[in-house]
Amino acid sequence: MKIEDLKTPAFLIDRPRLKANIEMMKARAQKHAVSLRPHVKTHKTAQIAGMQTSSEAPGITVSTLAEARFYQKSGFKDITYAFPITANKLQEAAELTAGLPDFNILLDQPQTLSAVAAYAREHGIRFNVFLKVDCGYHRAGIDPSKPASVELARQLAAADGIEFKGILTHAGHSYHCSNPAEIVKVAEQERDVTAQFAVRLQENAIACDTVSVGSTPSAMHAPDWRGVTEIRPGNYVFFDKFQADIGSCRPQQVAATVLTTVAAHYPAHNQMLIDAGALALSKDLGADHLGGDIVFGAVVNQPDLKISSISQEHGLITADDPIAFDKFPVGSLLQIIPNHSCLTAALFPLYHVVEDGRIVDEWTPMRGW
Amino acid sequence: MKIEDLKTPAFLIDRPRLKANIEMMKARAQKHAVSLRPHVKTHKTAQIAGMQTSSEAPGITVSTLAEARFYQKSGFKDITYAFPITANKLQEAAELTAGLPDFNILLDQPQTLSAVAAYAREHGIRFNVFLKVDCGYHRAGIDPSKPASVELARQLAAADGIEFKGILTHAGHSYHCSNPAEIVKVAEQERDVTAQFAVRLQENAIACDTVSVGSTPSAMHAPDWRGVTEIRPGNYVFFDKFQADIGSCRPQQVAATVLTTVAAHYPAHNQMLIDAGALALSKDLGADHLGGDIVFGAVVNQPDLKISSISQEHGLITADDPIAFDKFPVGSLLQIIPNHSCLTAALFPLYHVVEDGRIVDEWTPMRGW
Repeated sequence: MKIEDLKTPAFLIDRPRLKANIEMMKARAQKHAVSLRPHVKTHKTAQIAGMQTSSEAPGITVSTLAEARFYQKSGFKDITYAFPITANKLQEAAELTAGLPDFNILLDQPQTLSAVAAYAREHGIRFNVFLKVDCGYHRAGIDPSKPASVELARQLAAADGIEFKGILTHAGHSYHCSNPAEIVKVAEQERDVTAQFAVRLQENAIACDTVSVGSTPSAMHAPDWRGVTEIRPGNYVFFDKFQADIGSCRPQQVAATVLTTVAAHYPAHNQMLIDAGALALSKDLGADHLGGDIVFGAVVNQPDLKISSISQEHGLITADDPIAFDKFPVGSLLQIIPNHSCLTAALFPLYHVVEDGRIVDEWTPMRGW
Repeated sequence: MKIEDLKTPAFLIDRPRLKANIEMMKARAQKHAVSLRPHVKTHKTAQIAGMQTSSEAPGITVSTLAEARFYQKSGFKDITYAFPITANKLQEAAELTAGLPDFNILLDQPQTLSAVAAYAREHGIRFNVFLKVDCGYHRAGIDPSKPASVELARQLAAADGIEFKGILTHAGHSYHCSNPAEIVKVAEQERDVTAQFAVRLQENAIACDTVSVGSTPSAMHAPDWRGVTEIRPGNYVFFDKFQADIGSCRPQQVAATVLTTVAAHYPAHNQMLIDAGALALSKDLGADHLGGDIVFGAVVNQPDLKISSISQEHGLITADDPIAFDKFPVGSLLQIIPNHSCLTAALFPLYHVVEDGRIVDEWTPMRGW
C-alpha cells in the first residue's frame, strides 16, 4: 500500500528517520556512560519501545498506570511511572509492583510518603520509590536547596516497605529555550542540580543509586552527564516542529507527519481547507514563545503555507502571499509536521509506518488511563 | 460505584443535566418548527445520539466517515456527513449511501461536483448532496452573494447521479461572540443568509428542500428560524466553559467534567499538581478572545483556582491569592469544567455517567477516522 491509498487524516511514521533517532540517542547514552530509560508516552506502542530498549537496557518510563499495565502485558519488565503517586493509585501500583521484576514510583510529598508506607505495611509489600526533584522547571518535585528535602529522602530511605531508588528530575524548562546555547545551559542546570543533590544525600549517609534526568532538548544538548546515571528522553523518536524550532533537532530528523487531503480552495479569503483539525493535530501552540504567527503545524516542503486555524475536523491553510492553488489541487494530499508529536500521536488509534513512500507496517498504540 | 472510586483522570457526564439539555433543544426545535439533526461529534456515542433522536426525528450529523460507519452499525438510518467530500472519500461515501436509507454528503467546489458526478456515473449510484454555504464564518462554503454559487447549485440540481438535498451552513463565528446579544446577531445572519439564498435558488427554479443551519450558540439564541428547515447543534448536550463564558448557556447547564486527583502541593510557587493534563483536558484555550488569563478549564465550585498550565499528564493549578492548600489535600479529588467539551470528550476511551454522586452507567465512544 502506498501513502496515496490511505484514508485521511492519517499518522505517518518515517521508519528510517525513526530508526536513526533511536540509534542516535542510544549512542549518546553509551558515549556518556548513562542508562537510557526512554519515556514511551510519546508513542505508546510496544513496537517502538522494543526498538528503544535491549536486554542490556530494558528500562522504560511511562506517564500513566495504564501504560504500565500495557507494557507489562507486552513483556517489558522494568518500568518507572513518572508522575507523583497518590493514595488512590496505590492498589494499582501494588499490583504492578507484585507483577513486575522492577516497577518504580515517585513522590515528593511527605503526606504521600506516609500513605505509601502505610499501604506497604498493611499489605506486606515493598515499593520502589524515587524522590522527585525540581531542577528549575517548577512543575513538580522537591526544592533540593531545602533541608526538608534531605529529610524527606532520609525518611524514604528509612521507611519500612520502601526501597529508596534515587532521585529523578525533568528539565521541562528546556522547552522554554530559543536555541541550542540556551538548551545547553538548562541541561547543565538539570545535571548539576541533581548530581549535587545526590552528593548531598551521600554526605548525609543516604545512598542514592540512581540519578535520573529527562527531557529531549536537554538530552540532545547536554555536554556530558557527570554525576548522572540515567536519562529519560521521549520525544526524540519522532521530534516535531517545536523541537526543530528551538534547535533541539534538525528539521530533517522529524519522523512523524499527519497526512491530510485538500478539501477546498477559497481564493477570496486566500485559504485552503484540509481534513486535519484539532482531533488530528492537537491544539498545541508549539514554540509560541519564539514569537511570530501562531500555527498548528508546518506543511512539508511548503514553508509559505500556514495552518492558521483549526476546529474539530477542519484545518485552514493561509499564506502571506496569494496561495498558488494550482499546486495543491482539491483532493490532493499534504503532509503536516505536528507542533507537538506526543499530543498528536495520542489522537490516532493507528500509526502507519512508511519507507520509500510505501506503508510497511501498522502499529496500534494504547490509550486511556 | 461512587465518583470517589473512579481512577483519575475520568470523564464524567451529569445525567440529569444531559437529559435537560437534550430536552431543551428538542423543545426549541419544536417551538420553532424546525427539524433537529444533532451533531454527534461532541460525544460520538450511540447512547447520547439515541437520546437526542426519535422515530419522528431520526437524523444525525457526523464529522467523519468513521462516525458515519459507527452510527450505521448502531442502527441510525439518516446521517449527514458535514465535511466537504473529496474524491478520495467517495468509495466510502458510496458504501454508506448504498447501506443507509439516507446518507448525505456536502460540497462547495466545482471540481468536487465533477468528481462526485463522475463517480456516480461510473458506479451507477446516486449521492444525496448538500451545497455548503458560507454565512459569514469564512471557514468553508460558497459565497451566496456570487452568481457562480447559484450556478453551482444549478449544476448540482441538474447532475445525473446527484440528488440535490438543499443548502447547509455553520455559523462558527458565533464562537467569536462575547455575549448573548452578539450571538443573536450571528444567529440572525446565519438564518437570513441561508434563507435568502434558498429563496434565490427558488427564484432560479432550483428546488431547495432543506435549509440547514448549525452551531450551538446560534441555536441557543436564534429568536426564530424563519426560512430554515433544520438545525444541527452539537455541543449543547454537554456545554462547557467556553459556552458559559460567552453566554451561550448558563454555568449550571454544563454536564461534562473531568475528575482529577490533587497529586502535590507546592506552596513556594503557590501551585498544586493535578493528574489532568493536555491528554485529559485538551489544549483548547477556550474563549480567549474575552481576555483575561489563559486557563485550561475551571475547577467546579472553586472560582479562585486557575488551571494555568498543562503538559501531557500534568496540570498545574495556581491562584492570584495564596491557595488554601488545606481545603485540597494531597490525594483529594477535583472536578474540572473543560474549556471545550467536544475536544475533551474525544480524549477519553470511556465516559462515566453520574447521578447523585453515583456512577449509573458507562458509555464507550467511537474513535478515529
